Amino acid sequence: MRQEMLFERVAILGVGLIGGSFALALKEARACAHVVGAGRSAANLRHALELGIIDSTAPDAVAAAHNADLVLVATPVAQFLKLFREVASVLGPKAVITDGGSTKRDVVTAARAALGRKIAQFVPAHPIAGAEKSGAGAAAADLFRDRRVVLTPLPENADSAVKKVHEAWSACGARIARMDPEEHDAVLGAVSHLPHVLAYALVHEFATRETGAQLFEYAAGGFRDFTRIASSHPEMWRDICIANSDRILEELRRYRKKLDSIAKLLEAGDAVALEKLFAEARAAREKWIHSS
Amino acid sequence: MRQEMLFERVAILGVGLIGGSFALALKEARACAHVVGAGRSAANLRHALELGIIDSTAPDAVAAAHNADLVLVATPVAQFLKLFREVASVLGPKAVITDGGSTKRDVVTAARAALGRKIAQFVPAHPIAGAEKSGAGAAAADLFRDRRVVLTPLPENADSAVKKVHEAWSACGARIARMDPEEHDAVLGAVSHLPHVLAYALVHEFATRETGAQLFEYAAGGFRDFTRIASSHPEMWRDICIANSDRILEELRRYRKKLDSIAKLLEAGDAVALEKLFAEARAAREKWIHSS
Repeated sequence: MRQEMLFERVAILGVGLIGGSFALALKEARACAHVVGAGRSAANLRHALELGIIDSTAPDAVAAAHNADLVLVATPVAQFLKLFREVASVLGPKAVITDGGSTKRDVVTAARAALGRKIAQFVPAHPIAGAEKSGAGAAAADLFRDRRVVLTPLPENADSAVKKVHEAWSACGARIARMDPEEHDAVLGAVSHLPHVLAYALVHEFATRETGAQLFEYAAGGFRDFTRIASSHPEMWRDICIANSDRILEELRRYRKKLDSIAKLLEAGDAVALEKLFAEARAAREKWIHSS
Repeated sequence: MRQEMLFERVAILGVGLIGGSFALALKEARACAHVVGAGRSAANLRHALELGIIDSTAPDAVAAAHNADLVLVATPVAQFLKLFREVASVLGPKAVITDGGSTKRDVVTAARAALGRKIAQFVPAHPIAGAEKSGAGAAAADLFRDRRVVLTPLPENADSAVKKVHEAWSACGARIARMDPEEHDAVLGAVSHLPHVLAYALVHEFATRETGAQLFEYAAGGFRDFTRIASSHPEMWRDICIANSDRILEELRRYRKKLDSIAKLLEAGDAVALEKLFAEARAAREKWIHSS
């Protein structure tokens, strides 16, 4: 007798790093019987099929979501509105939807606009796990293990839907946290979106200089790690920046103010204050590293 | 019959990450017979002795440099003037000095002020290899292997001194490059000093906020790598920032200008220009990663 699966048919819309890893993690946990994938790139879907990430492909979101009991939307966030509309047309009453978007206010707005009463079945999620790699080839069953996944449940959500989505991400090994979408976008705008913008900015600044080749020639390990996230997916980060622009602008404003104050210390040659600032920063980081 | 050593007695002033790794690398290459260490921290020197990094300790730079045929100055750069004075008082005519300082204009100025005619024997060097760890315990024989070491030879240098110092760093496995001190400080001010300031600034900005604890709670791998260099030695980076403040200020000015232009794109919601900038940055970084 076959063991009862948590999900019979899981539809992954966007089988990239996040979507592919979600599928692999559910399979490893024996939490789903069949995974169907849909996406813009036929080559990527074929690759996902070859890698055993998905069991079948669907020509579009409608076909993928048909008869699915769990749908994950894991494309760049600007595509969510269209995908929610397509999913809404076929989503069964017992199915649940979640997502892997790095912003939540825009995702919730799109879901409310597109899902109608089926909004009760959509529980937004943001797995705080990433890599600078993208595509199905970068997916890994353990990407979410011991990582945080933030759920931002909606007032409209059925309790059973929140429970199901919670179980799905838990099956992936994630530690579940809850926030509201506003708080999520403020926190992630600071600790994730801002550093990405700063890293892209530094690489771009050097790459567009006449002396750029020489600069890269002498760049070493510190620069490599500082800019690792500047190898992230440009379209995904474009969408995040547009969706969360007000929070990122606020963070940029604060950060530029901090840089202004450091520039003043440099101008004044204030060695004592500089060392104090560096030591405080190091202490805060070391405390964080050893507690996380 | 014992094989001729490149150096008989090597004096390391400051047996930290750089000084300790230099000693270990020379030993591994069988390029020196005896290493004597001096430094401010007796505990660190004892540790270096226990680890076999140095063979003996000296109470000060004068005692260490006495009879040495190679002296490495590897403390934070603000101590160089005093150390050069002490070394000058005992340095033999066939000995050479080099250093591990991350800035070169200030080091050369201090050397000229302190060494008198013995400036001919001082060949400045900057090994572009580091880690956020410090102290003798962080030293490793392979720290410089395949890394760049920039020599900034002086017009006053004897050819034989340049050759000897070149051989010493080559024996550590380094790839030797040459620049003049001005060029060195401009290039390193951009690719190394600026990122360190930016990383310290970001951690400090979060650590000093009321919501800091929550921010660190949701910080993940991207933030960890971006800020790795903010765990660097505060005193060392204080000295670098003071010594190279004009170049770092110029780099900060350019970087803030780049952030201003990105803020304008965010304000305008210019998705096309944002994606273009991100894609250009990613392409430049990927090209660099695959060529280095």
